[in-house]
Amino acid sequence: MSKHGIILFGHGARDARWAEPFERLAARLRAARSEPVSLAFLELMTPDLPGAVAEQAASGCDAVTVVPVFFGQGGHVRRDLPQIIDACRAAHPALTIHCATAVGEDDAVLDAIAAYCMRQLDA
Amino acid sequence: MSKHGIILFGHGARDARWAEPFERLAARLRAARSEPVSLAFLELMTPDLPGAVAEQAASGCDAVTVVPVFFGQGGHVRRDLPQIIDACRAAHPALTIHCATAVGEDDAVLDAIAAYCMRQLDA
Repeated sequence: MSKHGIILFGHGARDARWAEPFERLAARLRAARSEPVSLAFLELMTPDLPGAVAEQAASGCDAVTVVPVFFGQGGHVRRDLPQIIDACRAAHPALTIHCATAVGEDDAVLDAIAAYCMRQLDA
Repeated sequence: MSKHGIILFGHGARDARWAEPFERLAARLRAARSEPVSLAFLELMTPDLPGAVAEQAASGCDAVTVVPVFFGQGGHVRRDLPQIIDACRAAHPALTIHCATAVGEDDAVLDAIAAYCMRQLDA
């Protein structure tokens, strides 16, 4: 049976509290599905993406979807991420690795952020 | 009559395409209300927050709500932003400046991101 992991890929930050929404996001996804859900970071936090991919491969995943938890498709998503994904594919040739568009490009995510902004006017 | 502006405060990036979701977010808010909606950035993009606040004050706003378009409450939001807001308040004593929590801390925003992640599994 196939096993399909999700990796939430974020920038990383010096302050550990920065990662709290990522942990809450992972918890939501773990509640919604039984297959692996991991976090990975570009810098300043661990694990990095190659580490998270290796762990999901070792746990028996044959497919992994990487979701960039970034607002925009800037240099980190357009330039750094494809290079890291290529290295992961080379390291795990039996693993299918999908890479999504940054979450902030999604209309429904932008709608939710806009609604949040409107609520702040009455706060 | 009171005039209440919104400023969407983002990190900024070298790649101009990074700001596209911020522009789309601003467009949604401008469609929802007639009062000013501006973008401002911490670094690498313009205007900065003091510039955006000065422009809204000059346009007749008596209140401004700054919404940090960040996922987490890391150092930029916990340490840098309050200092900038304090300087803006000192520069514009007649202006009421509210500052919201980072958008990524909001449950409905996290729900929308989680739903996006789940849809990527079928993409």
